[in-house]
Amino acid sequence: MPTRPPAEPGMSLDQVTTPALIVDLDALEKNIAMLADRVKGNPNGVTATPHAKAHKCVEIARMQMAAGGSRICCQNVAEAEAMVAGGISSVLLSNEIVASDKARRLAALAHKAKVGVCVDHPTQADILSAAASREGVTLDVLVEIDIGMGRCGIAPGDEAVKLAQYIAGKAGLRFAGLQAYHGGAQHLRKPEERKAAIARAAEMARTTAEMLRAAGLPCDVIAGAGTGTWENELASGIYTELQCGSYALMDADYMRNETASPFVNALFILTTVISHAAPTRAVCDAGLKSMSLESGLPLVFGRDGVTYVKATDEHGQIEIAPPGTIAIGDRLRLVPGHCDPTVNLHDWIVAARSGKVEAVWRVARGW
Amino acid sequence: MPTRPPAEPGMSLDQVTTPALIVDLDALEKNIAMLADRVKGNPNGVTATPHAKAHKCVEIARMQMAAGGSRICCQNVAEAEAMVAGGISSVLLSNEIVASDKARRLAALAHKAKVGVCVDHPTQADILSAAASREGVTLDVLVEIDIGMGRCGIAPGDEAVKLAQYIAGKAGLRFAGLQAYHGGAQHLRKPEERKAAIARAAEMARTTAEMLRAAGLPCDVIAGAGTGTWENELASGIYTELQCGSYALMDADYMRNETASPFVNALFILTTVISHAAPTRAVCDAGLKSMSLESGLPLVFGRDGVTYVKATDEHGQIEIAPPGTIAIGDRLRLVPGHCDPTVNLHDWIVAARSGKVEAVWRVARGW
Repeated sequence: MPTRPPAEPGMSLDQVTTPALIVDLDALEKNIAMLADRVKGNPNGVTATPHAKAHKCVEIARMQMAAGGSRICCQNVAEAEAMVAGGISSVLLSNEIVASDKARRLAALAHKAKVGVCVDHPTQADILSAAASREGVTLDVLVEIDIGMGRCGIAPGDEAVKLAQYIAGKAGLRFAGLQAYHGGAQHLRKPEERKAAIARAAEMARTTAEMLRAAGLPCDVIAGAGTGTWENELASGIYTELQCGSYALMDADYMRNETASPFVNALFILTTVISHAAPTRAVCDAGLKSMSLESGLPLVFGRDGVTYVKATDEHGQIEIAPPGTIAIGDRLRLVPGHCDPTVNLHDWIVAARSGKVEAVWRVARGW
Repeated sequence: MPTRPPAEPGMSLDQVTTPALIVDLDALEKNIAMLADRVKGNPNGVTATPHAKAHKCVEIARMQMAAGGSRICCQNVAEAEAMVAGGISSVLLSNEIVASDKARRLAALAHKAKVGVCVDHPTQADILSAAASREGVTLDVLVEIDIGMGRCGIAPGDEAVKLAQYIAGKAGLRFAGLQAYHGGAQHLRKPEERKAAIARAAEMARTTAEMLRAAGLPCDVIAGAGTGTWENELASGIYTELQCGSYALMDADYMRNETASPFVNALFILTTVISHAAPTRAVCDAGLKSMSLESGLPLVFGRDGVTYVKATDEHGQIEIAPPGTIAIGDRLRLVPGHCDPTVNLHDWIVAARSGKVEAVWRVARGW
């Protein structure tokens, strides 16, 4: 029983079943072209490897590859499977896996596409090697180093070199370089804070790469970067791949970074006012089950005096103050606080232009 | 492309693809029986009308009806469709709708089941009446009154009576009573606070019901209650239907209410430790995309010294302190903060008993 799509191509946005995830195609195309233009022809040969964890959508990934992306990053095996099934020729699982069945599924993709994966522990390498050997394929492996995020990642330097040597000796695996993503730096509000964090990260990646080369291990790839910091990684002379994800869709939280972003908001939750039982308050049908709120409440787009003040599971409470007016049945566009986990709540993306639905895309769900 | 189920019946929990939503069947059955036993034979003829918004699962709803539930509450039309398709004979949409297509879908269900719906504005009644008339069916309508929650609901008293009269005059609609749910009271920590809030709510419902009867309108149903307050509504002598949802699954936040709950935790996120790159920290594969965190971080079940300290989109950071130990590949059971929006993140519920998968149930997604 797959869910019913909320719209059909050709519909007006007024006919879409709400709450619905809307992508403004003009804005999406602008964002994808903007990053591609800024990366194109850079002196260091850096490429964009856009992250599908933000949109989980093969149609958007295809647009990003057509704009010059060298591969698509994924955060889980189900995303990678969806991308390869949709014709993406090269994927990187920018994450660790330890389950044999996930390793087997990932290795199976390497019959149809180039497949990379991250490792920060020998056990992961053992499991991936066994799966790759059984499938008769080779997986490109990046050693993930902790360059300040404190999440996944082995320590830069000696430990990373030892792990890379271990990987290089495993059947079915090819050591390809370093994963050096600093997620914590993306939302530092001040540009100088983000710049300093990435300078430190780049330095750790640089010294580790030199130690790797000195140990006879080529280190072709140094991957990382996100929507908040990519200009720093691009300028570093160290990073070779930019894994920006949110840039294509954007969200209210990224808009709070203290720098004029070159990207524009392309993502909305379309919601309907279902109750208006008192003059200053109304209720819309978008709450916690259609938006992720850990990065703050959504903004109401283009409606002065109409504010989203509280979310419960299926309801959003709206306050109305002059000059705001609202009527039952009104449709509002909300800019969600955080795009990735908001997209993850939906089964479908409604792709629209000038108020008209052009396409309805499936969200690659599961793990 | 429906998502791949994370498990098959007969598997051990160690074989389930993570992150996965696990329901412990012993605990679920105990919770369903506990509410049923407490409601059975009460002097006021109150019935349980369990809420599917918590579990979104027709198999659980069937167990609740078999235990004596008089109908199943739903929060959106897609849930109601799934319940009726699964053989539930009576559903209440305990929410307002204003879209004609949703009204049409709801009315269509009334060919196969008894269907109720809430209204707090004449416009909703107009739309529902048109849909019911077109389908040749009758919808039971509850007027939702705001008894202290400040969300949906018309003011109790005169306004509610006027709306009920309006509904009673509409083709295809039958005025059936009042919806008087107080969501805000469910998580008040102290039992005396919850008792006082429901006493105020019951008094508003009582006076409104008397005014309705005086106006010649029968008010057979007064519906409300949730897992935090149902004992108060049951004892009130006013409420006739108890719409508890979370009681079947429970969550960490309800466990924080200062009363020994008769219900036990039945819901877990099963997660795998995918990274353990430093002695005191590890990372598991359950983050914001598999658990809703607006009611706090999850608790790690049955592992001393192992604490879930931070969630990002796809990762959970785990701190280890003596006597805790952890190994890469370990599986942890997490008790999520808030059950309803956590279930909503998943496509499948893995129903398990004594560490073994008995069934894999579909989550009724969509709107």
